[in-house]
Amino acid sequence: MRPSGRAPDQMRELRFEPGFTKHAEGSCLVSFGDTRVLVTASLEERVPPFLRGKGQGWVTAEYGMLPRATHTRGSREAAKGKQSGRTQEIQRLIGRSLRAVVDLQKLGERQITVDCDVIQADGGTRTASISGAWVALRLAVDTLKLDVDPIMTQVAAVSCGIHGGQAVLDLDYVEDSSAGSDGNFVLTSDGNIVEAQVSAEGATFDDESLLRLLRLARIGCGEIFEGQRRAVGR
Amino acid sequence: MRPSGRAPDQMRELRFEPGFTKHAEGSCLVSFGDTRVLVTASLEERVPPFLRGKGQGWVTAEYGMLPRATHTRGSREAAKGKQSGRTQEIQRLIGRSLRAVVDLQKLGERQITVDCDVIQADGGTRTASISGAWVALRLAVDTLKLDVDPIMTQVAAVSCGIHGGQAVLDLDYVEDSSAGSDGNFVLTSDGNIVEAQVSAEGATFDDESLLRLLRLARIGCGEIFEGQRRAVGR
Amino acid sequence: MRPSGRAPDQMRELRFEPGFTKHAEGSCLVSFGDTRVLVTASLEERVPPFLRGKGQGWVTAEYGMLPRATHTRGSREAAKGKQSGRTQEIQRLIGRSLRAVVDLQKLGERQITVDCDVIQADGGTRTASISGAWVALRLAVDTLKLDVDPIMTQVAAVSCGIHGGQAVLDLDYVEDSSAGSDGNFVLTSDGNIVEAQVSAEGATFDDESLLRLLRLARIGCGEIFEGQRRAVGR
Amino acid sequence: MRPSGRAPDQMRELRFEPGFTKHAEGSCLVSFGDTRVLVTASLEERVPPFLRGKGQGWVTAEYGMLPRATHTRGSREAAKGKQSGRTQEIQRLIGRSLRAVVDLQKLGERQITVDCDVIQADGGTRTASISGAWVALRLAVDTLKLDVDPIMTQVAAVSCGIHGGQAVLDLDYVEDSSAGSDGNFVLTSDGNIVEAQVSAEGATFDDESLLRLLRLARIGCGEIFEGQRRAVGR
Amino acid sequence: MRPSGRAPDQMRELRFEPGFTKHAEGSCLVSFGDTRVLVTASLEERVPPFLRGKGQGWVTAEYGMLPRATHTRGSREAAKGKQSGRTQEIQRLIGRSLRAVVDLQKLGERQITVDCDVIQADGGTRTASISGAWVALRLAVDTLKLDVDPIMTQVAAVSCGIHGGQAVLDLDYVEDSSAGSDGNFVLTSDGNIVEAQVSAEGATFDDESLLRLLRLARIGCGEIFEGQRRAVGR
Amino acid sequence: MRPSGRAPDQMRELRFEPGFTKHAEGSCLVSFGDTRVLVTASLEERVPPFLRGKGQGWVTAEYGMLPRATHTRGSREAAKGKQSGRTQEIQRLIGRSLRAVVDLQKLGERQITVDCDVIQADGGTRTASISGAWVALRLAVDTLKLDVDPIMTQVAAVSCGIHGGQAVLDLDYVEDSSAGSDGNFVLTSDGNIVEAQVSAEGATFDDESLLRLLRLARIGCGEIFEGQRRAVGR
Repeated sequence: MRPSGRAPDQMRELRFEPGFTKHAEGSCLVSFGDTRVLVTASLEERVPPFLRGKGQGWVTAEYGMLPRATHTRGSREAAKGKQSGRTQEIQRLIGRSLRAVVDLQKLGERQITVDCDVIQADGGTRTASISGAWVALRLAVDTLKLDVDPIMTQVAAVSCGIHGGQAVLDLDYVEDSSAGSDGNFVLTSDGNIVEAQVSAEGATFDDESLLRLLRLARIGCGEIFEGQRRAVGR
Repeated sequence: MRPSGRAPDQMRELRFEPGFTKHAEGSCLVSFGDTRVLVTASLEERVPPFLRGKGQGWVTAEYGMLPRATHTRGSREAAKGKQSGRTQEIQRLIGRSLRAVVDLQKLGERQITVDCDVIQADGGTRTASISGAWVALRLAVDTLKLDVDPIMTQVAAVSCGIHGGQAVLDLDYVEDSSAGSDGNFVLTSDGNIVEAQVSAEGATFDDESLLRLLRLARIGCGEIFEGQRRAVGR
Repeated sequence: MRPSGRAPDQMRELRFEPGFTKHAEGSCLVSFGDTRVLVTASLEERVPPFLRGKGQGWVTAEYGMLPRATHTRGSREAAKGKQSGRTQEIQRLIGRSLRAVVDLQKLGERQITVDCDVIQADGGTRTASISGAWVALRLAVDTLKLDVDPIMTQVAAVSCGIHGGQAVLDLDYVEDSSAGSDGNFVLTSDGNIVEAQVSAEGATFDDESLLRLLRLARIGCGEIFEGQRRAVGR
Repeated sequence: MRPSGRAPDQMRELRFEPGFTKHAEGSCLVSFGDTRVLVTASLEERVPPFLRGKGQGWVTAEYGMLPRATHTRGSREAAKGKQSGRTQEIQRLIGRSLRAVVDLQKLGERQITVDCDVIQADGGTRTASISGAWVALRLAVDTLKLDVDPIMTQVAAVSCGIHGGQAVLDLDYVEDSSAGSDGNFVLTSDGNIVEAQVSAEGATFDDESLLRLLRLARIGCGEIFEGQRRAVGR
Repeated sequence: MRPSGRAPDQMRELRFEPGFTKHAEGSCLVSFGDTRVLVTASLEERVPPFLRGKGQGWVTAEYGMLPRATHTRGSREAAKGKQSGRTQEIQRLIGRSLRAVVDLQKLGERQITVDCDVIQADGGTRTASISGAWVALRLAVDTLKLDVDPIMTQVAAVSCGIHGGQAVLDLDYVEDSSAGSDGNFVLTSDGNIVEAQVSAEGATFDDESLLRLLRLARIGCGEIFEGQRRAVGR
Repeated sequence: MRPSGRAPDQMRELRFEPGFTKHAEGSCLVSFGDTRVLVTASLEERVPPFLRGKGQGWVTAEYGMLPRATHTRGSREAAKGKQSGRTQEIQRLIGRSLRAVVDLQKLGERQITVDCDVIQADGGTRTASISGAWVALRLAVDTLKLDVDPIMTQVAAVSCGIHGGQAVLDLDYVEDSSAGSDGNFVLTSDGNIVEAQVSAEGATFDDESLLRLLRLARIGCGEIFEGQRRAVGR
């Protein structure tokens, strides 16, 4: 039995609130249960220096957590003067995941910066971020009214792990902090894998576990893809 | 005529959503029109080193702005590795304002850290922060169920300025960026001033203007005090 | 009775020593009693990036305190690797105050950087800085021999506060550290206000106090304006 | 055909030179072909603050690359004043991998810091680091002559990827920079997985590819385990 | 002929103004011609962590240059967020030079921090700093009224160099920036050398030049020692 | 008797391994006994901003120490976020020493960056760095096949000191940490001095000692020059 009473392959309640803020070209407040992330996509008609004159665009991401998004207050990274290794790892993952489904040539010489700021954390902030980021990105690209669509497929992410010997989907904080091993899967809506990453946390795992987690991820992402489509009105 | 069509002494729509996040001892999403700030109050049973063993508590504040809270994306302070002078100035003001209405002896050896994070900016983020901070602080202190109340009065803040030759209350971004002079007033619910700060922005001003702005601030804060009381159920 | 024996509306001894250093286009060692600040104005025939090609100049300020300017040694900001919030707040105020009396169009595409370094501190370092900065600025602009004078009026600053229930002018360190509330007023020689900023420090205050402090500031700044004029030979 | 002429499941030449430096309790210069990493394990009889008094030890890792380890000189992280996100991601992975095979209780209140410094880079620096780190760790722990061995199994890592449509083992720089997708596998000598991480780089991938890469990783790690055993004389 | 018209073995005008600031236990404004450095010595009844409980004291130094001490304004190190290599090199030299003439055991568990801040620079700021630092140190130690004097001898420093083929003493900025080689000598009043450091700047030099510079340094330091004695009234 | 059993004027075993790494235009692993430094020279066809368009090149150096190059592990400068004063002092010295023997006009608009990374430290890391740097520089310049040779002479460095009352050559760590005074001499192969720097460490010294150390340095550098020539095949 999971602490939350959910079935092993049951996601938490998903919610996408598109257009949560008014200034950003695309925005979305995404909730995976009590995990809530505000995502904005900012569009600029210029590219970073390393891409100038190459006829292609760029998509990048930044991630942050409000100090009291967590059970006990964490220190503010701006006040400490640097981003933690965890923060950098997550924002690199988000950027990679989005670029995997965007044709940068078709985007043209533009940069889209996706900011994922965790308002409330209860496990799975990086997967919620990626899933919400696609919605914000989609909305921002829609404002361009381009002839060819630079977004190739949807992308979504979900965490899975071995908790109490059982493979479970979409871990919340309680499960996450006591899982033997857990991972994050980033999948595309046409059935491919963008990123699969599973780590032992106290207990190593075998090939079968890896496959079982991947199967759960496919179930979860299917549900997320549907939510994303409803959120962007497609 | 003000750009927004408001009367000179008319506040924007005020909204306080107490309990916006679940982990913080006190929290509030405060809106002054389109300016929206998420405030959390975090309670810790310890004091900073300079107060250890002195039998009193401490209240402090931190302030931040999400990168895309503004019209164009600003760079993330955590990524730049330092807080701007503006950020530091604002968080010092918020802390001072709250401490002015808290009896630190009665609070006991506890620290309350108030985080004000601007979700969406449209002028007056510091005054919305102070006004919402009081609500979060009140809710956090209420969880302590103390015999004597360390909070002496309410505190609220509002901006006023000379715009188009006219003294106006609660400037939005459009007014703020073209005001001849503007200021922020932090007032207590028993009629006193905690902070009065007025600056020339392009046009210096005279004593009468200072007094007129202060009168407007009294009107605005009166309205805010009422909203705060409803938000905390008093 | 004030700790120093001064009358409530009595300034400390003022001294301006223009030309204190030889390299700067303008310089001044300003003393408000034992508070001594070395101010230099550095003129450059270029403007910061955000003003390039706009046909106007810029005036900005930096502030610092020598480590042993104070009773006990403070740590060196260059060694700590960052400027405190207080330092940044002060240097922003000095810059704003100077720009309020300079016509940046008439200055032309030039930048003047005013450095205020506190040699010895005894309260009122920011007001002494502003008052001395005008002298350094005036001297630096004089070297340009421009046809039209970009400096519109004099600007001076003084602190006032409620100490022992009494409104007093130009607080020294002893008064400053025990005042119920205090503030800084930046005034122009043609009778206007550039900045009025009063904060409660332990005791909130009322409208009458604010006005009384402003009246004292007018007396103090009158005296400073005279000292400035003598210093620049006008 | 691979650029290097290797068979798809062929590792580059492996070399472990234990005891490469004299001060460290354990050290090893590990080579995966032209990729060369100097690993040292430093033993201290104290633990980090968060573990004090908990009766257990800690293993952590740091990673760096000499500026000219690469084809063109990269800037020195110490000079830039911060470690890149990539550096932090890698050193977190190395630490996690080592801790997965160490019984921290049996290690006792000691800390082992493993430094992995890349002398020459030709792809696969993180997997060479992990593989060499186990040797340095083993040698350092041997100096303790403990009754019970805190090291549970060997741990090794290797990269695999899809290059030119073919799954290949142990990518060198040329393959790495043109692979459609690639990943790193960290395996234990008793057949379990510590970390599996595969990312799309330009081309997403399917479940079969993931399994094929895992199979290749088992082949490569088998060879590494043998090299490690020879290096530590077991 | 030297640019300044001085004889090769002629110092610039020396001036020591002891007691220049009121808060420091010892202070001195030292001038070597137009080079002016404000030195303060701050006494604290505690030692740095690495010396705790060892029954000895410590003397350390910090060095800074006001932004407009030089011909053109340099950027403020506190604003840049770090001290330059030059600054650090100089403050390490000052600290070493002072410790060479202090018996740290006799000083007892105290720390003296000497701050050298360059008000105006015209060559030789490090040698003026060391020479003035001894005066501030002497005055600070005198306030302790110790039974045994921890200061063993005087220490002074002067620069020498080969300019226009001629060995000259106490280089000013003009000479310094065009010297073929130059150096700094730190000598004690009992005839010994604390530090001798000569560098080629464009032209390497021979043994005889080294000796000639050392002889000049002895002449210069003799004069400085006399000035120091007068300044401290001995 | 020296701790190592060496004669007073005896160098440690010298070794230069040119071409130690494959990417750099020039490289060398230099050993002075147990002190081992990896030096690489990186050639770029561009100059730093301050030299653009001046028709000359630049040579600069960076220095680092691997965390466990020393007896006990030192913290990683990249992780601390800044280079120590010692590191900066050393890298400035290396750069100056190399530039003293290079005709920057003849080098043309190119920059050579020499990286000296200490693999193992046993005293004399800066002198080994300079001596090895010349080899790497020579090899890098050779790849240019220029008509005129920009390298004017060889440059080498060695440490000398007064240990146990005796002047000794090429101090190892044991001697270095207990020497009364020690210094570093940078000499050219045509008999001139680039830098002479001797510091008292506990005991001041006299003119004769300075000369004796210089004589020893000439002996040591003679041996180094020969080793350098063999290493570069001249």
